[in-house]
Amino acid sequence: MDAAGYPIPGQTTVYDTSASIDLENAPLDGGFLAKTLILSIDPFLRGKMRKPEKKSYSAEFKIGEPLYSYGVARVLRSETPDVKVASTLLAILFVPFSEYAIYPPTVLPSLTVVDKRPDLELRTYVGAAGMPGQTAYSGWKEHADPKPVCVSFSFISGALKEILKQNDVVFVTTGAGPVGSFVIQLAKQAGCKVIASAGSEDKVAFMKSIGADVAFNYKTTDTREVLQKEGPIDIYWDHVGGEILDAVIEYSAENARLINLSMAVGKCLHLHGILVFRIFHKHAKAFWDEIPPKLASGEIKFREEVTKGLDKAGDVILAVQKGTNTGKAIVVVAEE
Amino acid sequence: MDAAGYPIPGQTTVYDTSASIDLENAPLDGGFLAKTLILSIDPFLRGKMRKPEKKSYSAEFKIGEPLYSYGVARVLRSETPDVKVASTLLAILFVPFSEYAIYPPTVLPSLTVVDKRPDLELRTYVGAAGMPGQTAYSGWKEHADPKPVCVSFSFISGALKEILKQNDVVFVTTGAGPVGSFVIQLAKQAGCKVIASAGSEDKVAFMKSIGADVAFNYKTTDTREVLQKEGPIDIYWDHVGGEILDAVIEYSAENARLINLSMAVGKCLHLHGILVFRIFHKHAKAFWDEIPPKLASGEIKFREEVTKGLDKAGDVILAVQKGTNTGKAIVVVAEE
Repeated sequence: MDAAGYPIPGQTTVYDTSASIDLENAPLDGGFLAKTLILSIDPFLRGKMRKPEKKSYSAEFKIGEPLYSYGVARVLRSETPDVKVASTLLAILFVPFSEYAIYPPTVLPSLTVVDKRPDLELRTYVGAAGMPGQTAYSGWKEHADPKPVCVSFSFISGALKEILKQNDVVFVTTGAGPVGSFVIQLAKQAGCKVIASAGSEDKVAFMKSIGADVAFNYKTTDTREVLQKEGPIDIYWDHVGGEILDAVIEYSAENARLINLSMAVGKCLHLHGILVFRIFHKHAKAFWDEIPPKLASGEIKFREEVTKGLDKAGDVILAVQKGTNTGKAIVVVAEE
Repeated sequence: MDAAGYPIPGQTTVYDTSASIDLENAPLDGGFLAKTLILSIDPFLRGKMRKPEKKSYSAEFKIGEPLYSYGVARVLRSETPDVKVASTLLAILFVPFSEYAIYPPTVLPSLTVVDKRPDLELRTYVGAAGMPGQTAYSGWKEHADPKPVCVSFSFISGALKEILKQNDVVFVTTGAGPVGSFVIQLAKQAGCKVIASAGSEDKVAFMKSIGADVAFNYKTTDTREVLQKEGPIDIYWDHVGGEILDAVIEYSAENARLINLSMAVGKCLHLHGILVFRIFHKHAKAFWDEIPPKLASGEIKFREEVTKGLDKAGDVILAVQKGTNTGKAIVVVAEE
């Protein structure tokens, strides 16, 4: 890696022509031999270029061994029952960066047999029809929950008001990339307003061409100003984390969904902020049916610290803020 | 507030006996007059003791006006159709810190008519049967998704392995408080292993008495060491944020659920980390049915940057890491 942390072609990533393989006779040990046709180059490869001490959700590359990524290969010989010769094309996680490779039969769960359409190129099965497209699609379907037009009721200044909300507002970072550009289009199809950022004018033009309502170059435009003007944000597709994530949190709507692909949450974590008065209505009937009887019977235990007299309220407030109370702090102002 | 940010009873929180009210004749203007019986003292009151410039999900207290909180009051007179005199007991958000108060009719949506059980004290309706209990219950039901015993399949070293997972592991901070102690008991009832922390030996003893499997004093025991030994954490009930939240993220299991009550997410935000290979299976059929035809027809657009030759792979890897590519980076190693 150079001083900036980038690989150096020919030095840290080497094209090595020294290995050879006997395509007719190399032993397969129950596996299969395939010819590499397509390799996908993705940002996640950087995460695998690391010291083995550093843990992650995916294994590190081993020094001296071929890199590997998503790819498409054609099977030349096979001893694996479910992997057929010649006609079978496979999108495999992970294909080694070599012209040919022998795969063990245990690789089976990680490969998809491509049902190639005549109107799509094979290479698209590692792109829009492959991992990046699948990431955008399944992340969006799983968590975005887009609401194009909705009526909501809010309690404002002591009265229930009906609010017509026009569109969910979506913000997509790295919006010109394979994942981000897919998300922009899913969001537009769902009727949302889409804000998208990327790092060049060419990328901004591309984001506009695929439907982004507001597209900007984050290197020349302040993200916070855009969010303040065009937000609040209901759905955020986060490729970057850090300060931009902080800004989105500041300019997000209540109940916003933030979908994060950064390394920090490489464990599929789900972080939910809760406010009881926003969600209790969904659970109120079950609560009133289940909980008071359990409190009365002692099945659920609780502690109360009762203080009598409104004049003691200031002392109790202080105790709660210092955490010196040892039960739910309650002031009894008057007996019935 | 004193130098440490605590209120000073008698100075910043004042018991004021100067006001008076004519209980028989004070005009109600369509509202109702009620006698305050119970007041709840909660940590959230601190958030309302702030300068009006600072925005939050709940309004700030006004200098010179009575504080208010959750409470129970008995109705003495009423001009509000749905609020009945005498027999009606109400848990109201928000009851002013005064012996009597006139409530406008617009307060109606924020009050719960308590169907008081003879075997529960009225005060418990602001505690375990009130906001703290409701917070624990609805946050847990909404987001915890506890799995006491489950069989999962994981792809380990190239083979699908069946893993019997004994219990979800739950970590609760502020575990002796009204919300945390409720969560500990919900988690135990769901069959989980529960780790709980609090700030005194008395609180540790209480947490053990209500079922916590591992209870510790965070002032004398290092949280990180406990999590490393007793984790990984599947469900985290976060009252504290900051370094402890960072530690939990480090020692959490995949797909962990983090339920956060800190001010930072006072907007009910939902942050989801995603890894495509953990969720795609749920959406695979829909993806393969819907997406390839849309890619072929041009309804969903995509850009590809194709490089031919395995010997160029190192250059493409560098371009992707620098972000200079303008389409999905693909290396074509061989034509079919």
